[in-house]
Order: sequence, then C-alpha cells, then structure tokens
Amino acid sequence: MKYAITMVNTHFDEKIQAKIDGKTKPLGALGQIEVIAKKIAAIQGMVTNQIDSLAINQPTLIVFAGDHGVASEGVSIAPSEVTGQMVANFATGGAAINVFCRQLGWQLSVVDAGILHEPPAQLKVTNQRLGSITEPLHQAPAMTLATVEHGFVMARDLVKNIKQKGSNLVAFGEMGIGNTTSASAIMAAIMKLSPAETVGKGTGVSDDIMAKKQQVVTQALKLHRNSLNDPWQLLACLGGFEIVQITGAMLAAAEQSMHILIDGFICTAAAMVAVLINPAVKDYMIFAHCSGEQGHHKMLKWLGVEPLLNLGLRLGEGTGAALALPLIQASVAFYNDMASFEQAEVTNVV
Amino acid sequence: MKYAITMVNTHFDEKIQAKIDGKTKPLGALGQIEVIAKKIAAIQGMVTNQIDSLAINQPTLIVFAGDHGVASEGVSIAPSEVTGQMVANFATGGAAINVFCRQLGWQLSVVDAGILHEPPAQLKVTNQRLGSITEPLHQAPAMTLATVEHGFVMARDLVKNIKQKGSNLVAFGEMGIGNTTSASAIMAAIMKLSPAETVGKGTGVSDDIMAKKQQVVTQALKLHRNSLNDPWQLLACLGGFEIVQITGAMLAAAEQSMHILIDGFICTAAAMVAVLINPAVKDYMIFAHCSGEQGHHKMLKWLGVEPLLNLGLRLGEGTGAALALPLIQASVAFYNDMASFEQAEVTNVV
Repeated sequence: MKYAITMVNTHFDEKIQAKIDGKTKPLGALGQIEVIAKKIAAIQGMVTNQIDSLAINQPTLIVFAGDHGVASEGVSIAPSEVTGQMVANFATGGAAINVFCRQLGWQLSVVDAGILHEPPAQLKVTNQRLGSITEPLHQAPAMTLATVEHGFVMARDLVKNIKQKGSNLVAFGEMGIGNTTSASAIMAAIMKLSPAETVGKGTGVSDDIMAKKQQVVTQALKLHRNSLNDPWQLLACLGGFEIVQITGAMLAAAEQSMHILIDGFICTAAAMVAVLINPAVKDYMIFAHCSGEQGHHKMLKWLGVEPLLNLGLRLGEGTGAALALPLIQASVAFYNDMASFEQAEVTNVV
Repeated sequence: MKYAITMVNTHFDEKIQAKIDGKTKPLGALGQIEVIAKKIAAIQGMVTNQIDSLAINQPTLIVFAGDHGVASEGVSIAPSEVTGQMVANFATGGAAINVFCRQLGWQLSVVDAGILHEPPAQLKVTNQRLGSITEPLHQAPAMTLATVEHGFVMARDLVKNIKQKGSNLVAFGEMGIGNTTSASAIMAAIMKLSPAETVGKGTGVSDDIMAKKQQVVTQALKLHRNSLNDPWQLLACLGGFEIVQITGAMLAAAEQSMHILIDGFICTAAAMVAVLINPAVKDYMIFAHCSGEQGHHKMLKWLGVEPLLNLGLRLGEGTGAALALPLIQASVAFYNDMASFEQAEVTNVV
C-alpha cells in the first residue's frame, strides 16, 4: 500500500513565529506549549491556508485490541482471556481510558482487531478482526503479509470515516496480553538492540517472566532475521493485530492531514514502523508521554522527539495520550486567544 | 503568627490503597495519577471522614503582583512599569494565565500586593497593597517585619473567603519585575548555596544581566547574613510583597485543609519559606511542574517532591499550576469512577 502523505511545509513558519513572539510574554517562555502550537499551526496553515485561528475538533481515541499467540509462553502476568475481559470493560465504560476520555472530552471507540473470542454483539465494539490470535512470534510469523495489508485497509477506512465526521485529531490506544513482547521485538529489530535493552517489565512481571520474555524475543529475532529489513515483513513476523492496525491508522491519519497524538511503548513501536514506511508521517505526530516501560525513552530518542508528559504510566489503553489532550487544547487556546503586546499595551522589551 | 495546620494522618491509608489496587489495571500502572489520588484522598478522608468519593470544587488561582526595588538595578529585561501593565492585562483577560484559566476551568483572581501605581478602580484587582515597591534588597531589608505580618493577615483573610465560597483547591501565581532575583536570594539563603547556583535567566536575561543579578544577590546575602535563619526575617530582608502574601496564603490554605497546587520558581521559594514556618503545610502541597529556571529542580529536590509536568515553562503567572489541573481532576475521576476487578468481571491476576 502507498500513502500519499504531504510533508508539512514551512510556508507559514515565519508568520506563525511572529504571531507567537508578539504575545505578552518573554520569548519562548511557554516552552513546549509554544512548540506544540507551532506544530499544529503549520499543519492547519497548510490545510486551511490561514493561520489566524486554530482548532482541535472532535478529538477521537481509538483503542485497538488483539491477542498474541506468544502469551501462552507465559510472558505476561495475565492470560489472553484478560484481553477480551478488558474489551468488555472498555465497552461498558469502567476502564481507566473510559474515565479519562469522559473527563477530558475524547470520543472513544473500541476496535476488535482480533481477540480470542468475538465480543457479544450488544457491546459496541467495532469488528475489524484479523483472526482470533496471532501465531507465537518466536515459532512462526505472527501473521501473513496479506493479513497485514487487510489490517491497513480496514484501519484506513476507519480513520477516513472519523475524519469525515469532523475530527482533526486522533490518538490510538491498545489492549493485548503479550503485546509488550511484540513491541520489544519490533524495537530490537528496528534499532538493532539486544532484547536485554528493549524488553521491559510490561504491566509488572517478575524477573523470571522478564527472562522468558527476553528469550522469546531472542528466538523471534533469530527466526525472522532475514525478513526484518522490510517494515511490512517486520510487522507480519513480529506484530500483533492491534499493532498492525495502529500503524496503518497512523499513516492514514497523516494522509488525511490529521494531528496524531502518540501514546506509550506499544503505540511508539507502531509509530516507528509507520515512519519506516513513510517518514513524512512523523510531521503529524505529537508524542504524549514517556512511559515507565524501560525501552520507551530510547524509542523516543531514536525518533528524535520530546514527549509532553512523564508520569510513570505503564497501563496502555491510550491513557497517556488521553491525559495530554488538555495541553494540546491549551496550546491552541494560547495561540488563538492570548493578547499581543500591542493589544494589551504592554511594553515589549524583547 | 501561628498556623494551626493538622498534619495529614494515615488513618485511611490502607483503605485508600486497597481501593486503588482493586481497580482494573496492573498495580501502580497509573504512576503519578495514583500518587496524586492517594494524596487527595488522605486529606479529604481526614476532612469528611469518608474516602468513597473525592471532589475538586471551584479550583481557584490567585495571581499576586508586587514591585521590587531591586529592579532599578537592571536585573530584568523589563522595567517595573511592566508589572502594572501585566496586571491590567490579567484584569482584562489577555494574558497567558487568563487563557489557561478559561480553557481549564479555574476561577482567577488578581491581587495587587504592592505595585508601583495603584490600578484604576474599574479594573477588577483586589487591593492588598503593602506599599508601592520594596526597598532594594541588596541595600536594605525589602520591607519591615510588620509589613510581612500585615501581608500574612490579608492573605489569610483572602484564602478563608475563597474556602467559604466553596473552593477546596487553590493555586498561586505571581507577577513582579525583579522577583526571580528575590526568589534566588531566598533559595540561596535557605539552601546555603552560592548565588551562581541559584540565579537563573528568569524571563531570558543576557549573560551581563545574569552577572549583575548574581552580584546583587551576593550583596544581599552578605548584608542580611545575621537575619536569614528566621523565616520571618528572611522574608522581610529578601522577599517581595507578592512572595510574602503567597507564603501566607499557602499556610492559610493548609490551615483550611485545602489542596495547594504549587507553580514555578517564585512560588516554590514561597513554599520553602512556608515549610520552614510550619512543616505540616507540605502535606497539602502538590507540585505542578518543574520550570525552565535553572534553580527550580534543585528546590524541588530540597523539598523532596516530584512535580507533575516538565514543559520548560518560565513565564510565571501561575501558568504551570494552571496547566496541571486536568491531571488532578483525572486523578480524582480515576479514583471515583474506574471499575474494580469485581465490578468489571476481569480476572485479577495481581
């Protein structure tokens, strides 16, 4: 699949900077709030051909859930059944991500990207199933290339639909017992790091389980060593159904010139693959937080990005992205509504 | 003045922890969100004798403004007149703090703690003037002990009034050309550090002005060396009218068992003095952010606290505290509304 992503241009950069620097504050004194405002203004300037007023419309968070064959190796604290139980929890509004979305004004949707048991129809879960569980990645490719492509097609349609409904900012979350193992393998393959440097405690596993995770990732990297230079093959060998769809959704969102708020370890693994497929996607990404998972800060460094929050989160579900929304909205409000030195009759000594 | 501050007890700690650990997430996976929820629950448990449901009511941010005699030494990029101009900007809604307060749901009030020219009556600025400008702190005590005490009395009345109107969370912001010099001196005196370690670039001064700031602080510390072990004397010698009232307001808020959200460098200097006057005040404090001012992270370390945000802000006005409110509200929503394993029928493997 090809993605027609426009690199964000610098057409309005000087005007954007002048507008920001004219506001009643010392130069650069709002730190990352200014950085985010600039980033959003550059994209919206390109889309709307004006930079006077920015808007975040219908921020939408999509949680993709998928089950991982590798979970039966005992790489997690929980069995695969918990993925489906948590999907039901999302659908009935009781999980952390539901609480944060309600609190902070996100529209939330839940996608079954391929979990063990199909959720009952009365639960409002979008069916985008790529299977019921991936193959164990240390024994076989997690899925076929055709499955990856199918996931990308569905993810693109979903994002297009959200855009058509009026949203211009999306974030993605994930649920999938075993998915930090998959993300650690993807990270190791892309960054050429040893599993010891990429495998972390996930949701809080013991040292024994950590050792098992490392061993599984080592086996997987060895088994698929000839397929890891191509991002599509890499996803097929090491990915998960939710990771594949998140990667595709990121590329689709950039294609639609939407802002993309990136969550934690799993979503950043997907973001790295998306960047390999089409580097222009990075222009549309805002990194919400650095998680407590040991590899995450290294991924962010590899991408050359600075996250907004650092709260020691290690839950997934998109919770870190959800919590960063008020900062995005404050950046836009700053850009739109703060007075200039001239308007406020304040002496500009800068 | 005496402050009857109740140390926050551990009466409900086990029950609070059990409630948090019963929620559908791995233990501790929400990092600082859990820490904040616990802190708020312990205080509200003490006040209401129940921990089932927490609430943040009418969060109120008070910006105190004061002018500093030391400003005429050229320690800032701006002249003292800018303090009053910015107060007018606050009163008419054009400053960064106004934008963030509107965006995030703070009630904002602006206090003239003592600026060069009294603002015109039509501007809604609360008059708590301790003078029009402090004495230059490197030549004389900034103010008398009686002035400090008068500031504390007014600050206490103000906070009591806000509490009576139904607020249980306050934050403080400041405006005052020259006030990073005052705060750097306070920091150096309390932490026994050299001015080189405490003086920073404030709103963005040149290296020459930095050197001047350091020299002024060095002179001030020498001049007042026999008065710096007593927190009241320290405030009188090195403080500002806004810093004095913020210190008093923090102590008064703790006396009222309110949550106190602490902003950046200046407010943390006030917090340090408040802790010296009555250490129990710290139990009520939540530290909003680490600012871009070089000394701030050292202050936070001295206090032994972890801030919520780190956005490179160096504006003051209470902007960092303002931006942290959604995280506080998300902590409370998490505590109140997230399902337990039992409620959600999720297997608890923890």
